Amino acid sequence: MNNVIIVAGGKGLRMGSELPKQFLNVGGKPVLMRTIEAFYNFDKSIRIIVALSASYREHWSKLCKGYGFSVYHEVVDGGETRFHSVKNGLELVGEGWVAVHDAVRPFASVSLLKTCFDAAKEYKAVIPVIDVTDSLREIDGENDSKIVDRSKYRMVQTPQVFESVLLKKAYDADFSEYFTDDSSVVEAYGHAIHLVEGERTNIKITTPFDLDLGEVILGK
Amino acid sequence: MNNVIIVAGGKGLRMGSELPKQFLNVGGKPVLMRTIEAFYNFDKSIRIIVALSASYREHWSKLCKGYGFSVYHEVVDGGETRFHSVKNGLELVGEGWVAVHDAVRPFASVSLLKTCFDAAKEYKAVIPVIDVTDSLREIDGENDSKIVDRSKYRMVQTPQVFESVLLKKAYDADFSEYFTDDSSVVEAYGHAIHLVEGERTNIKITTPFDLDLGEVILGK
Repeated sequence: MNNVIIVAGGKGLRMGSELPKQFLNVGGKPVLMRTIEAFYNFDKSIRIIVALSASYREHWSKLCKGYGFSVYHEVVDGGETRFHSVKNGLELVGEGWVAVHDAVRPFASVSLLKTCFDAAKEYKAVIPVIDVTDSLREIDGENDSKIVDRSKYRMVQTPQVFESVLLKKAYDADFSEYFTDDSSVVEAYGHAIHLVEGERTNIKITTPFDLDLGEVILGK
Repeated sequence: MNNVIIVAGGKGLRMGSELPKQFLNVGGKPVLMRTIEAFYNFDKSIRIIVALSASYREHWSKLCKGYGFSVYHEVVDGGETRFHSVKNGLELVGEGWVAVHDAVRPFASVSLLKTCFDAAKEYKAVIPVIDVTDSLREIDGENDSKIVDRSKYRMVQTPQVFESVLLKKAYDADFSEYFTDDSSVVEAYGHAIHLVEGERTNIKITTPFDLDLGEVILGK
């Protein structure tokens, strides 16, 4: 069985808006609804779990009613960090495969989700990555920095898809500040991460500019 | 005196189009014209040098006539690599300050250009950078990769602005494959690089998607 934990814990402080980014409109619909639909369109029987700050449950519920949003999903409490949110979501997950996905990445294509879930069946831990197109520098101390070979780096997206038993075992670990995504948790547990090709259009909505980009992506 | 070398040597192989990216239209005007105008709008007396493949000189000349493009600029031959193009451009540059800029970055703001040139007067070698917003992994061998701390990395943009005497000395070096931008040449020569804050909208047009982003940026 396929599962997805959509992590929507953020408070959206970077937007200059009081509303967290996942509730903002893109193409006439809240971002989070598009994110949920992306997984539903990939697999009508996928179990969809949304980790949401308790303080926004009511707001989300009203949004769903207002938009007549009918894709079935379960809501769990978002924790203090992404790690804790995923951990809460994992309590609902049994055997099978589980994706962890950013609520603010509404444009992952069905083809990308298929690639990630398919590869997870073979490799157990899969993440989509894209090339770094600009030169890259590593900061070293206060004012020093040095150029690094950008061809050796990849930018990491979600969904990150895992065999659920593996991800649950990895998440038994204590929280570490080094856990910046799910692959870092699985890596710390000792399992190799398999990379697949991500999508330029699978953007994370973190600034007002990204909402404009979203309109462009939807216009395609 | 301020100078800029606009590097337009690329053949645009990534676009799925025969025409190099700098000649494509964004908002009704070729990208390269917008790039030239960005520097002209910053400083009406800046010396503008465009390094262009010899095979595209005639095409560019026709475009300028067709669009009635009247911003004065000089054209030098684009070399086999970016390094060689910049070197050709530098032959025209005397004392003062010189920016090196990608022809396919038409949206650098006047404010960003001012920041870079102002800082160059103090630090002699200045580049704009932006934060990495996604998780970052370093590829290690064929299938291995490991997560790195993205807060220690910056993505490098242009214009890269230098005291011209310094840049000319640095460019006396023999070509190395490690020279992926101008700051890497200056760094190899032994001079520290000062970083300033770049702009999310200062995108490099490398795919058709970027042209759509460009329309969004122009719509602001």
